[in-house]
Amino acid sequence: MSEKIYVGVDLGGTTIKVGICDAEGNLKQTYEGPTKAEEGAEAGMERIAQYVRTIVEQSPYEWEQVAGVGAGMAGFLDIPKGFIKFSNNLDWHNVPAKEILEAKLGVPVAINNDANVAALGEAWGGAGRGYANCVCYTLGTGVGGGIIINGKVYEGFGGMAGELGHMAIVPDLEAINCNCGQKGCLETVSSATGIVRMAKDAVERGDRTSLALIEKITAKDVFDAGKAGDEVALRIINRAAYYLGRSMASIAVVVNPQRFIIGGGVSKAGDILFEPIREIFKKYTPEHAQTGVDIVPASLGNDAGVVGAAGLTLR
Amino acid sequence: MSEKIYVGVDLGGTTIKVGICDAEGNLKQTYEGPTKAEEGAEAGMERIAQYVRTIVEQSPYEWEQVAGVGAGMAGFLDIPKGFIKFSNNLDWHNVPAKEILEAKLGVPVAINNDANVAALGEAWGGAGRGYANCVCYTLGTGVGGGIIINGKVYEGFGGMAGELGHMAIVPDLEAINCNCGQKGCLETVSSATGIVRMAKDAVERGDRTSLALIEKITAKDVFDAGKAGDEVALRIINRAAYYLGRSMASIAVVVNPQRFIIGGGVSKAGDILFEPIREIFKKYTPEHAQTGVDIVPASLGNDAGVVGAAGLTLR
Repeated sequence: MSEKIYVGVDLGGTTIKVGICDAEGNLKQTYEGPTKAEEGAEAGMERIAQYVRTIVEQSPYEWEQVAGVGAGMAGFLDIPKGFIKFSNNLDWHNVPAKEILEAKLGVPVAINNDANVAALGEAWGGAGRGYANCVCYTLGTGVGGGIIINGKVYEGFGGMAGELGHMAIVPDLEAINCNCGQKGCLETVSSATGIVRMAKDAVERGDRTSLALIEKITAKDVFDAGKAGDEVALRIINRAAYYLGRSMASIAVVVNPQRFIIGGGVSKAGDILFEPIREIFKKYTPEHAQTGVDIVPASLGNDAGVVGAAGLTLR
Repeated sequence: MSEKIYVGVDLGGTTIKVGICDAEGNLKQTYEGPTKAEEGAEAGMERIAQYVRTIVEQSPYEWEQVAGVGAGMAGFLDIPKGFIKFSNNLDWHNVPAKEILEAKLGVPVAINNDANVAALGEAWGGAGRGYANCVCYTLGTGVGGGIIINGKVYEGFGGMAGELGHMAIVPDLEAINCNCGQKGCLETVSSATGIVRMAKDAVERGDRTSLALIEKITAKDVFDAGKAGDEVALRIINRAAYYLGRSMASIAVVVNPQRFIIGGGVSKAGDILFEPIREIFKKYTPEHAQTGVDIVPASLGNDAGVVGAAGLTLR
């Protein structure tokens, strides 16, 4: 039993999920418990350490096989130092997470943000397995992303690489303000929030659409209406897809990945979203930058975070 | 005299320029001679080898100090194999350049395309010196580019990384066809060709501009007119700058470089081009992706190619 194992921690606002992966990114075991973030960062760090010890105890592996522990979370991080500057959803500030967890566990620890970790999970053990260079999108409330270069998360100069939701992609005439302070960001149109906003606008304008009958429209409602042939819903879906496809066309000549991977709740819509994205990508990308390049759904679902976190110390 | 030196070859359509650099990318000596491409690839390879031997003989260095030779050129290359598939301006086809030159010279040889090599030159010994992550633009007849990650040229899956001129950046309503087969590429507006086209369009439309008096408008004419206060010229310059700035805003959240470097003939226009680029970049880039990031002119001029080529085997 000398095989090395890697433990991943997906640190969420309400739940901490931990998982054990082998060196190939296969998820072998999971365990989860409450975050109780309100008890503070110190208690939270102890809870993480506890869950990590527990999952290994409950597994067929020995503690000596643990080669590293990684944790993914939302928030502003100093990634090289493993320092949580500020986490909105946990309300934790200035936590030297790597230092604390390494002292508690006695193994190397790394932290990274949730979008990068999900990207690494897909690249290592999911839809990007075997592809050295991929770009991952996470379509949820916002649009997150991660750039995988030579199998590793690429963070860039200030840790902002892969913040694909903030590509300035919408022309001024149609641009609306984004939470980030800029205008025309991709996530203003291609996130669940953007899709719901466009649907509400259409209903308010009085467009003829079945969405007008729904009290609280969700992105899923828009996709369902589109699948049922609602033309307004289809127009909204195509607009979200159009800017995703155009952003990929630009990325294709900047980092030229072999594979684009799209995950997150919105990606579950399937072909009705993927087909127009592929069409637009094809239309706006020079032939040499699209040859051999594909656009595929993520395959790990909610496990991407825990798998990617497990991979942090290895990759 | 155990210091290692690196020889770079800038293989142009009419002239072959060679240079010797030290390990820090300082250009110590240059030499040049005719390409005589029409005599064929075999004679051309022999000529390159000859020029490399000659420059070292004429220098204070010994042949034993040569740690590697690199060559940059226009054309379709198989970079890892060091193979010239097709060079338009030389009319050479299927030349195993690396293999031939290594046999002739007995030292490691690498080849790469001219835009990547110019980017590496600036990153190694020019405006990017000391910056691990930069993105370089070359504004000439077209718009070339290069992505430098951790001090090395990043080529991407199919060698198309850094083909910044083909970012699909112009909205459909204003987009025109590009040589690459797509529409709305950056180089349709921000290259010398794009600037001249916009100027001709303005003159043909009957816009009131001093450019109407010029028989054969060049990009420099447009910048000169702009500096003299010609409003039509300024509008054209601002449009070229606008799309450059927007492309940088997108790149800032994809690879988040520390420095953007702009070279090539068009960049000599100076502040009249750089100021609006910086303004647009600031406007469309999230704060965290522009903090500490700057946009500067290239500093090596025509030497970027020979310096970058010299750096190929090292970096």
